[in-house]
Amino acid sequence: MYTVCVRDHFMIAHSLKGDVFGPAERLHGATYVVDVEFRRGELDDAGIVVDIGRATHLLEHVLADLDYRNLDDAPELEGANTTTEFLARLIFERLGARIASGELGQSARALESLRVCLHESHVAWAAFEGRLPVAPS
Amino acid sequence: MYTVCVRDHFMIAHSLKGDVFGPAERLHGATYVVDVEFRRGELDDAGIVVDIGRATHLLEHVLADLDYRNLDDAPELEGANTTTEFLARLIFERLGARIASGELGQSARALESLRVCLHESHVAWAAFEGRLPVAPS
Amino acid sequence: MYTVCVRDHFMIAHSLKGDVFGPAERLHGATYVVDVEFRRGELDDAGIVVDIGRATHLLEHVLADLDYRNLDDAPELEGANTTTEFLARLIFERLGARIASGELGQSARALESLRVCLHESHVAWAAFEGRLPVAPS
Amino acid sequence: MYTVCVRDHFMIAHSLKGDVFGPAERLHGATYVVDVEFRRGELDDAGIVVDIGRATHLLEHVLADLDYRNLDDAPELEGANTTTEFLARLIFERLGARIASGELGQSARALESLRVCLHESHVAWAAFEGRLPVAPS
Amino acid sequence: MYTVCVRDHFMIAHSLKGDVFGPAERLHGATYVVDVEFRRGELDDAGIVVDIGRATHLLEHVLADLDYRNLDDAPELEGANTTTEFLARLIFERLGARIASGELGQSARALESLRVCLHESHVAWAAFEGRLPVAPS
Amino acid sequence: MYTVCVRDHFMIAHSLKGDVFGPAERLHGATYVVDVEFRRGELDDAGIVVDIGRATHLLEHVLADLDYRNLDDAPELEGANTTTEFLARLIFERLGARIASGELGQSARALESLRVCLHESHVAWAAFEGRLPVAPS
Repeated sequence: MYTVCVRDHFMIAHSLKGDVFGPAERLHGATYVVDVEFRRGELDDAGIVVDIGRATHLLEHVLADLDYRNLDDAPELEGANTTTEFLARLIFERLGARIASGELGQSARALESLRVCLHESHVAWAAFEGRLPVAPS
Repeated sequence: MYTVCVRDHFMIAHSLKGDVFGPAERLHGATYVVDVEFRRGELDDAGIVVDIGRATHLLEHVLADLDYRNLDDAPELEGANTTTEFLARLIFERLGARIASGELGQSARALESLRVCLHESHVAWAAFEGRLPVAPS
Repeated sequence: MYTVCVRDHFMIAHSLKGDVFGPAERLHGATYVVDVEFRRGELDDAGIVVDIGRATHLLEHVLADLDYRNLDDAPELEGANTTTEFLARLIFERLGARIASGELGQSARALESLRVCLHESHVAWAAFEGRLPVAPS
Repeated sequence: MYTVCVRDHFMIAHSLKGDVFGPAERLHGATYVVDVEFRRGELDDAGIVVDIGRATHLLEHVLADLDYRNLDDAPELEGANTTTEFLARLIFERLGARIASGELGQSARALESLRVCLHESHVAWAAFEGRLPVAPS
Repeated sequence: MYTVCVRDHFMIAHSLKGDVFGPAERLHGATYVVDVEFRRGELDDAGIVVDIGRATHLLEHVLADLDYRNLDDAPELEGANTTTEFLARLIFERLGARIASGELGQSARALESLRVCLHESHVAWAAFEGRLPVAPS
Repeated sequence: MYTVCVRDHFMIAHSLKGDVFGPAERLHGATYVVDVEFRRGELDDAGIVVDIGRATHLLEHVLADLDYRNLDDAPELEGANTTTEFLARLIFERLGARIASGELGQSARALESLRVCLHESHVAWAAFEGRLPVAPS
């Protein structure tokens, strides 16, 4: 199995709903440093899993929809508890849909799985991994 | 699959038994920076794998039993070769037993696996991963 | 010159005022991973710059006043532009005042300078360094 | 499952063939920081996956064949597109062959899999993982 | 004193001239992860040392002139020994000249010094720091 | 000012004397990841601060005298409180004496200062920096 991983980050405000979160029920924020792993069993004709430049741009576009926002006010996230785990899956779904619609090119349709990891500090991170293809939304 | 990871560290003295260890047969020591990954297929009602605060405290308690000790003198480890691999599994077992006894709450009983990784330097680490539940000792 | 450094983090929401900030004028947030360096020319009688445990607790207390908050609503910061640089100096001032009032013990009065560095992502940080003592506020 | 990982690096020049690579079609270079994970289900008699010292030396020997070279001029790589993914697999194959021929000792024949990860910058890496034994070449 | 630091990277081929370099006399390459620190005694009217976004773009432009090249064939570097130290100073000079010519805006003319650090692996880096302004070339 | 830095590590057991150390009065241990910075105002004829390979070997030799030992039993450290700060200075002195006696070659006599930083965990480090030459012991 081959993997390629690219890294970027985004910075948001939000609050979490539920007694378990204690002080994180208050409006606060986070920098999320995001690692996305792209995986497949065989390389494509160019000898790669996915072009690192294109993968980086794809991630940049997906994160731009979240960056510098208060997620509590995001209409598309209404009712969601935007935990790190939830955001990892959200980014997985959005990346997967764009890959399925061809944004990484034909060869990327052979990608078998993605793993999205969000580092919220130097001592904690959360990740979601799942199989591809994801149906376009 | 979702994962949450928390990090802490502990500092011990020990010696290793066996010709393969060369100078590490002498009494020396290590800082172990510990990453513990908690994994499950679905999030709980609060939208999390496990509460990062509670997971951090659980790890802190388990490491407190080892921290600032000479493991060669630990009665409960008598006869053991306290390699990094051994310690990774030991911490896995102790975390697993505490989770099974409810220390992370009811929801955490749905955790499917743990991975415990001990970084012994900037160029070497060892890990143990296994399924949950672990029977309480 | 001797230095001791300890690390912790805090997570806040805020917005920045000024055209230069572009999208950061919107309410967003950040995780700040904080490194504080304590410096002095000679060690104390115990052979240290400052006790790492006490320094860690002091930093924890200072960061607790900021953690999990929306800085735009903090009465004590009214009118301030809470840039990373500003927050680095704010934490410097607060640490300095507590050191001057004896919270790190008598020996710590010989500290000559502090440097406070806030990492806002894997690709950007800001720092403030200055001499001690800082007058208690 | 137990894992032990060791880290080293090598520095090479090369160019990549194919329109997808854009400016990387030109002769350029890279530092690859290499993490090799050795995995097995049970520890050996000494309580380890593999001796970290021996594993480090094995990796050093394998990387020495690549280090400080222009891979475009390497006869043994003629016709290959030396992408990060390709190099990860190449190192996997070479490590696997040496393990199969006994260079890590008898106990290491129980290793079940290897993962070779090449970090090409602070924002991108590629890896190959596969099962052991690999047939000696 | 305030500091802001931004990080980027570039990837080059080169060879070094001189017996001291041993195998590095051969054509090889490196990834350089570059940290640039901008320093000044007082913040500007917006409360910053320099805008992190603008600083990041400036660094990107300066590195683009070096990225994905064989430095042995760069006409503007003819006769130079492109050691890590040399490259750190080269980037310092180029950044300094652009700052002097106003590319970071008026406020950035108050910058007092720059430090350019090039990480060539996980175990070695080199840096150059100097005062501003640097005369435009 | 130019700087070159190399990294290595060592692993020791020790105990600290004094009430301030709390549990660290017990015999325990640490991995110290060591960064040594070599500094000078002008490069030598080869265009370097110091040869990274030679600097790495020098550090290796100095650390070999401490590695895999119980410092409480080291005759040459009798009576010393082997805090991280103390060890940083000890390594500074030993490196400085070897440089003064020519182990890094003639050119290295132009080195102006050294900084030795010991990382004892992911959240704490200590350093000593001083001017060269140090008198050979």
